[in-house]
Amino acid sequence: LRNGMAEVIYCEGKTAPQISKIIQKQLKAGCDILATRLAREAYLKLKKNLPSKASYNPEGRVLTIYKSTRPKPVGQILVVTAGTSDIPVAEEAIATAELLGSKVDKLVDVGVAGIHRLLDKVDRLREARVIVVVAGMDGALPSVVGGLVSCPVIGVPTSVGYGASFGGVAALLTMLNSCSTGVGAVNIDNGFGAGCLAHRINVMGAPSTT
Amino acid sequence: LRNGMAEVIYCEGKTAPQISKIIQKQLKAGCDILATRLAREAYLKLKKNLPSKASYNPEGRVLTIYKSTRPKPVGQILVVTAGTSDIPVAEEAIATAELLGSKVDKLVDVGVAGIHRLLDKVDRLREARVIVVVAGMDGALPSVVGGLVSCPVIGVPTSVGYGASFGGVAALLTMLNSCSTGVGAVNIDNGFGAGCLAHRINVMGAPSTT
Amino acid sequence: LRNGMAEVIYCEGKTAPQISKIIQKQLKAGCDILATRLAREAYLKLKKNLPSKASYNPEGRVLTIYKSTRPKPVGQILVVTAGTSDIPVAEEAIATAELLGSKVDKLVDVGVAGIHRLLDKVDRLREARVIVVVAGMDGALPSVVGGLVSCPVIGVPTSVGYGASFGGVAALLTMLNSCSTGVGAVNIDNGFGAGCLAHRINVMGAPSTT
Amino acid sequence: LRNGMAEVIYCEGKTAPQISKIIQKQLKAGCDILATRLAREAYLKLKKNLPSKASYNPEGRVLTIYKSTRPKPVGQILVVTAGTSDIPVAEEAIATAELLGSKVDKLVDVGVAGIHRLLDKVDRLREARVIVVVAGMDGALPSVVGGLVSCPVIGVPTSVGYGASFGGVAALLTMLNSCSTGVGAVNIDNGFGAGCLAHRINVMGAPSTT
Amino acid sequence: LRNGMAEVIYCEGKTAPQISKIIQKQLKAGCDILATRLAREAYLKLKKNLPSKASYNPEGRVLTIYKSTRPKPVGQILVVTAGTSDIPVAEEAIATAELLGSKVDKLVDVGVAGIHRLLDKVDRLREARVIVVVAGMDGALPSVVGGLVSCPVIGVPTSVGYGASFGGVAALLTMLNSCSTGVGAVNIDNGFGAGCLAHRINVMGAPSTT
Amino acid sequence: LRNGMAEVIYCEGKTAPQISKIIQKQLKAGCDILATRLAREAYLKLKKNLPSKASYNPEGRVLTIYKSTRPKPVGQILVVTAGTSDIPVAEEAIATAELLGSKVDKLVDVGVAGIHRLLDKVDRLREARVIVVVAGMDGALPSVVGGLVSCPVIGVPTSVGYGASFGGVAALLTMLNSCSTGVGAVNIDNGFGAGCLAHRINVMGAPSTT
Amino acid sequence: LRNGMAEVIYCEGKTAPQISKIIQKQLKAGCDILATRLAREAYLKLKKNLPSKASYNPEGRVLTIYKSTRPKPVGQILVVTAGTSDIPVAEEAIATAELLGSKVDKLVDVGVAGIHRLLDKVDRLREARVIVVVAGMDGALPSVVGGLVSCPVIGVPTSVGYGASFGGVAALLTMLNSCSTGVGAVNIDNGFGAGCLAHRINVMGAPSTT
Amino acid sequence: LRNGMAEVIYCEGKTAPQISKIIQKQLKAGCDILATRLAREAYLKLKKNLPSKASYNPEGRVLTIYKSTRPKPVGQILVVTAGTSDIPVAEEAIATAELLGSKVDKLVDVGVAGIHRLLDKVDRLREARVIVVVAGMDGALPSVVGGLVSCPVIGVPTSVGYGASFGGVAALLTMLNSCSTGVGAVNIDNGFGAGCLAHRINVMGAPSTT
Ligand SMILES: Nc1ncnc2c1ncn2[C@@H]1O[C@H](COP(=O)(O)O)[C@@H](O)[C@H]1O
Ligand SMILES: Nc1ncnc2c1ncn2[C@@H]1O[C@H](COP(=O)(O)O)[C@@H](O)[C@H]1O
Ligand SMILES: Nc1ncnc2c1ncn2[C@@H]1O[C@H](COP(=O)(O)O)[C@@H](O)[C@H]1O
Ligand SMILES: Nc1ncnc2c1ncn2[C@@H]1O[C@H](COP(=O)(O)O)[C@@H](O)[C@H]1O
Ligand SMILES: [Mg+2]
Ligand SMILES: [Mg+2]
Ligand SMILES: [Mg+2]
Ligand SMILES: [Mg+2]
Ligand SMILES: [Mg+2]
Ligand SMILES: [Mg+2]
Ligand SMILES: [Mg+2]
Ligand SMILES: [Mg+2]
Repeated sequence: LRNGMAEVIYCEGKTAPQISKIIQKQLKAGCDILATRLAREAYLKLKKNLPSKASYNPEGRVLTIYKSTRPKPVGQILVVTAGTSDIPVAEEAIATAELLGSKVDKLVDVGVAGIHRLLDKVDRLREARVIVVVAGMDGALPSVVGGLVSCPVIGVPTSVGYGASFGGVAALLTMLNSCSTGVGAVNIDNGFGAGCLAHRINVMGAPSTT
Repeated sequence: LRNGMAEVIYCEGKTAPQISKIIQKQLKAGCDILATRLAREAYLKLKKNLPSKASYNPEGRVLTIYKSTRPKPVGQILVVTAGTSDIPVAEEAIATAELLGSKVDKLVDVGVAGIHRLLDKVDRLREARVIVVVAGMDGALPSVVGGLVSCPVIGVPTSVGYGASFGGVAALLTMLNSCSTGVGAVNIDNGFGAGCLAHRINVMGAPSTT
Repeated sequence: LRNGMAEVIYCEGKTAPQISKIIQKQLKAGCDILATRLAREAYLKLKKNLPSKASYNPEGRVLTIYKSTRPKPVGQILVVTAGTSDIPVAEEAIATAELLGSKVDKLVDVGVAGIHRLLDKVDRLREARVIVVVAGMDGALPSVVGGLVSCPVIGVPTSVGYGASFGGVAALLTMLNSCSTGVGAVNIDNGFGAGCLAHRINVMGAPSTT
Repeated sequence: LRNGMAEVIYCEGKTAPQISKIIQKQLKAGCDILATRLAREAYLKLKKNLPSKASYNPEGRVLTIYKSTRPKPVGQILVVTAGTSDIPVAEEAIATAELLGSKVDKLVDVGVAGIHRLLDKVDRLREARVIVVVAGMDGALPSVVGGLVSCPVIGVPTSVGYGASFGGVAALLTMLNSCSTGVGAVNIDNGFGAGCLAHRINVMGAPSTT
Repeated sequence: LRNGMAEVIYCEGKTAPQISKIIQKQLKAGCDILATRLAREAYLKLKKNLPSKASYNPEGRVLTIYKSTRPKPVGQILVVTAGTSDIPVAEEAIATAELLGSKVDKLVDVGVAGIHRLLDKVDRLREARVIVVVAGMDGALPSVVGGLVSCPVIGVPTSVGYGASFGGVAALLTMLNSCSTGVGAVNIDNGFGAGCLAHRINVMGAPSTT
Repeated sequence: LRNGMAEVIYCEGKTAPQISKIIQKQLKAGCDILATRLAREAYLKLKKNLPSKASYNPEGRVLTIYKSTRPKPVGQILVVTAGTSDIPVAEEAIATAELLGSKVDKLVDVGVAGIHRLLDKVDRLREARVIVVVAGMDGALPSVVGGLVSCPVIGVPTSVGYGASFGGVAALLTMLNSCSTGVGAVNIDNGFGAGCLAHRINVMGAPSTT
Repeated sequence: LRNGMAEVIYCEGKTAPQISKIIQKQLKAGCDILATRLAREAYLKLKKNLPSKASYNPEGRVLTIYKSTRPKPVGQILVVTAGTSDIPVAEEAIATAELLGSKVDKLVDVGVAGIHRLLDKVDRLREARVIVVVAGMDGALPSVVGGLVSCPVIGVPTSVGYGASFGGVAALLTMLNSCSTGVGAVNIDNGFGAGCLAHRINVMGAPSTT
Repeated sequence: LRNGMAEVIYCEGKTAPQISKIIQKQLKAGCDILATRLAREAYLKLKKNLPSKASYNPEGRVLTIYKSTRPKPVGQILVVTAGTSDIPVAEEAIATAELLGSKVDKLVDVGVAGIHRLLDKVDRLREARVIVVVAGMDGALPSVVGGLVSCPVIGVPTSVGYGASFGGVAALLTMLNSCSTGVGAVNIDNGFGAGCLAHRINVMGAPSTT
């Protein structure tokens, strides 16, 4: 990551003291902090040593610490989920994109089994500059969204499901084989990666004609 | 298969003379004939020895020979496809169900990338007793259909696609993980199996209350 | 789900308080309740706040709460298992179909290793309007059942087994490749989905002739 | 291979001249010949240089050349197939076991979709010392056979099928997960290996008590 | 696709007459034409009936027919390949994006085995608004590119390779697991999909601050 | 299982009380008992209610209870392991075959990385009527053993290993692709199945010549 | 292993007492000790019975006990990691090669997402006789390293990652499909195997010209 | 590739004219030529334009053109095959290593099914500085070789086999899970890669002691 921000801290497989040490070091360096995959238990251990402006999102398992003055968020990313079980991954994407400076909105539980929940929100879909669609099980939502809008769509498969969902592989394959144009995919449960990519797209200026 | 019908002839890997021999034997036994996976070239070799009422569908690669009098087709099966490339598998399902005695209707190229093509046909979807949904690539259509109707839905994944479609596996997994209720699946490209199952459902009488 | 029933609650990955909150909301809305994948421990935490007519099936891990008057169950679904270890999945299917209004019977431990156990029950197989066959390991039972009856058969592979059963994939593939006609499949361990599909089939009225 | 027999010739990927050269060398060494996976076209090219007692089985794609005097075949192997498409693999097994000196009988097209075809033959099943069961698609037959007999059963999965049969993997997994005891498996389409293993079992003398 | 353009014609599995018919219909409707996966042989059959401004790219297997006046191409897409064998997929992406109205540049054979070939071109990488990186075998190039730029990167795995490349799966997985941020992926060999997505990104106007 | 023996009890996923109940019932019926996959903790809970002649093998996790008089064990099965980590699966095979009435010998830690350990024991290999070879990781041992003996060989892949051993799949594939003749395979970690199959082979009488 | 060293102890799945017993036996035999995959908890139980020169590396989970006099380490192995999470596997490789007598250096966290971290160290890369490159996620680092040096490169994929990293399979495939020459691979997380192979290479004397 | 040698030409998927053009260009640049995966038919078309010192190996499908004076080959690589069907891949490795300047010897058809064929050659195995072991089907040979020598061993899995050999995956997994130390692997059928890696190892000078 660029511009006065250190590397994002991936907490999976790190102990609370290890995480704490990295955070203190980054704070000293004057960086904004984003720690992903931070379990509630680990957060509770860290808490007492964190600055007051630290904010933990237990669903998304992300910790953010913003420096005092933040630029105004720009553009418009929309993060959509198919089910309520997909929300944690969506929260990771949102926290990431916001930390990087994007304005982010969300729309949850509008999966294709009840297509009218989505169709009722077409206006909000069309206001976005880029849409992140988070879906597990059949992973069908990005295909439908891709057909309803003309902006770029990023599919994030989740590991929600069981049996032949193979930990999110079914949803991933659905997205890679999307019959809609304009859909790209990131790794299973990779809200962080989707947030980064969406931000790179969202902050783009206008194209010149040659 | 039951009731005055011999086994359906699966022509894959059989030579034209082998197929011809089986057909003649079944005709002698007074059976209706259904031969699936019959390539055009093989059909052309068989043709001269077939009775005049023989009918070949080159898209579905199915040959049917009906005995002179047929009972009136019953009920209402609807066969739906996502793309035009899925039509051959749909034709196999239709020929199978019709031979078994079902009334069958079809609706093609209404995939989820342009969801309004499907929504415009909701009335026809709701007239069916059972719907067969044929889809390759992302295989997302049965999930949407399942949410729009209350009758049983049979998903048939097709091998249409490339790369990470893995010869239809992506579509199959999508259907097995459908977030809609009331959806079952058969093997990839198995129009025949879908036709049989849809027929078994379509001919059901009314339930009694205990 | 339709007709005065809220969404079925999928409890996997939800905490007891989260589940409790959803149940209370649905009860207030006057809905019947079906909660699947509800672990015994979670149930025990919920118990004190549940109405007296709540009923928990620990084998099937399903909780049902029926409103006072229920219509008479209709039709006849038969749920069959290959082994005793497949019973939990069968119970999920039974609870689901019953909640939706179907009459359901069961037949357990009639796997193909001792084929006479099944052949002794052919009469009961033939009384059903639709049969749900639950099997793990080799998943061979639906193929045999499909050859003995003329009604639709829904195969439910289970994750019972080890090694090359790959968590139910072996059984799933067996069912998708069934050499019997009239067999469809749902996801591994998906008793819920099988119950929904069987109910959709079971409640069908009689077909008209065109 | 032992006892006056050279290595069996695996013809896949070898040219007719290469095969011819190996055969002539083995004939000179006074060996019986078994060549497997020999395509009809390659055989036709070899034919004119073969001794008159050479015998080619086009279904099994095996060529055998027996020395003038052969010992009487011993014991009793039964080779069973689920469908007619499985016969080529069965023929490879039969040719192999016979060349090695075993007596072999066969029973074809008794798959589980019509279980009574098999049950009608239980007597023949019980006469065998070892049974080779050849089956593609769902691969369910060895499980049923294993439950009907007390002799060893060798399952041979075949690549017959399409889609989620994955070239015989579905049938292989079924056999490895057989819910019957006394069933072992060999590689997909490996009639040769099944014939060798069945022969090793079939020629065993009586056990001593310690 | 939107704005006076009919559906892109996917020629895989369609005969020359079928393709010809679709083209004539779209020309009559006044649309620009893009036909992908059009084999040279099929093109030669179509050729005589095509308007003079038709242009066929044999490497990319794409046919384009532009209406007389075209708007000036906008923005800047860069398409990069790891090897020379990846060029056909790159050409499909280029043709697609250009037809849609984007300005596209290319850079080929700069794979990671000779990293200085890429580093010498960092300036061109940084001029692009969005980069499409096409790579087979190890698929490592998008990870390196993603670390060198701050614009969005779209990885296109190709089926170039053998053995454990599994027809492009190895490269696909590399891209999904990219240790660089800002990388999304499309299906194996899906130059068309990458071209569409890159175009959607490339034409974006400037973001507003809220 | 036949002849005065009830079904073997597969304890995986059953509670101690459930197992206890089944054992008491089988004892009352006068059966020998074999319980597999019985964890030490579960055994300790059962212990006080078991008859004194009960015997538990903690490595193999099998419990056996023999009726007072046992026939003399017959024949000669040899169970061989590649490493010391494969011993638990070997013990399951041994307990199974012994309970069924076979005489069983064992030879451990003779894997192919130090081939002379095996070659030193060729005499013992050649005394067996049937050999069970238990191996994880590369699963190469059955191929070597198959080439050294002329009796049937049953390969049992184990889940010993990590990474690309895929829980025993690597060893299983090695055995299915054995370049030695006379090798069959059972499921991963399936000592029980190997014991049953080896017993069926081991008890065979002498073949007749026709 | 050769030259006064007993077998390396693979501690996975062994209890502390079992490990202790093997260590005491090897110490008595006068061997150097290397125990891999030794969890911290198990080490703490062993500790009091270990000789004072025992040394435990908690990151690499390896225990080494060196005999009093050690020969001078020879040659130059360089162990490189892509990320900090790959360090445990690197430590296993280092401990193994050092125990065997090699001189080993390390370079960590130089993954391809920030390629200049690696390019800054090209001199150190070129000083090595053999390089072990440890990388998870996209596993792209060995391809880049292989292009920068002319010595042999051993890739060690790690299970670091989630989703479509499939426990290290993605990184493994990347390495097997490396577009650089001179790269070989070992199993996922197999620092031990890489250390052994690197040592075998590192100790080689000079080649003769024939 | 370094030192006055252009890139090796990978001919798969290139036409004869394309290959010819590259060869002429490299000859002009004064490079040695190595063209791999060159089918016999393509070679015959090229032949007339090649210099007289061009040499084509039809088994290995490699073309080499050496400049007039060649340095003396150094060191000693041994290439070993399990079966005769593995020879083409071995020839590719040999041609590659020889072109690079290594002395190479070969030993064929010494697979583990007849282990004494290998044991009879232990002396030759021990004379090599590095051994390349080429094996399909079970891929077991490198494990045995690795245990007999102390030099580095490179396993090359081949696609020889059928069914569950999965195009060489079974052999690859065997090699990755080798229970012998000192074994690394390259991609399936990658004789070229093995030749390069073996050469890098073979040309090493003697290590210094620090
Ligand atoms: N056992 C089950 N298996 C599959 N789907 C289920 C199950 N139980 C409930 N569901 C579905 O899961 C949906 C709720 O998902 P979510 O919005 O993520 O909480 C419900 O609408 C049901 O259709
Ligand atoms: N159909 C077959 N399937 C598997 N292995 C076979 C078959 N036919 C022959 N073989 C084996 O292949 C070996 C020859 O392989 P190769 O040395 O590569 O030509 C013979 O010794 C046989 O053991
Ligand atoms: N190369 C391609 N890869 C993936 N999809 C394509 C390609 N070319 C065209 N398409 C899509 O395929 C659709 C036509 O599919 P169908 O209705 O089955 O003929 C078009 O609308 C395109 O969106
Ligand atoms: N970390 C490791 N990874 C792979 N193999 C190992 C490892 N550590 C030790 N080994 C091998 O495992 C063997 C012992 O296996 P076992 O006989 O099953 O206990 C030793 O001889 C080593 O060659
Ligand atoms: Mg929901
Ligand atoms: Mg279409
Ligand atoms: Mg049972
Ligand atoms: Mg049949
Ligand atoms: Mg190149
Ligand atoms: Mg050992
Ligand atoms: Mg790092
Ligand atoms: Mg051979």
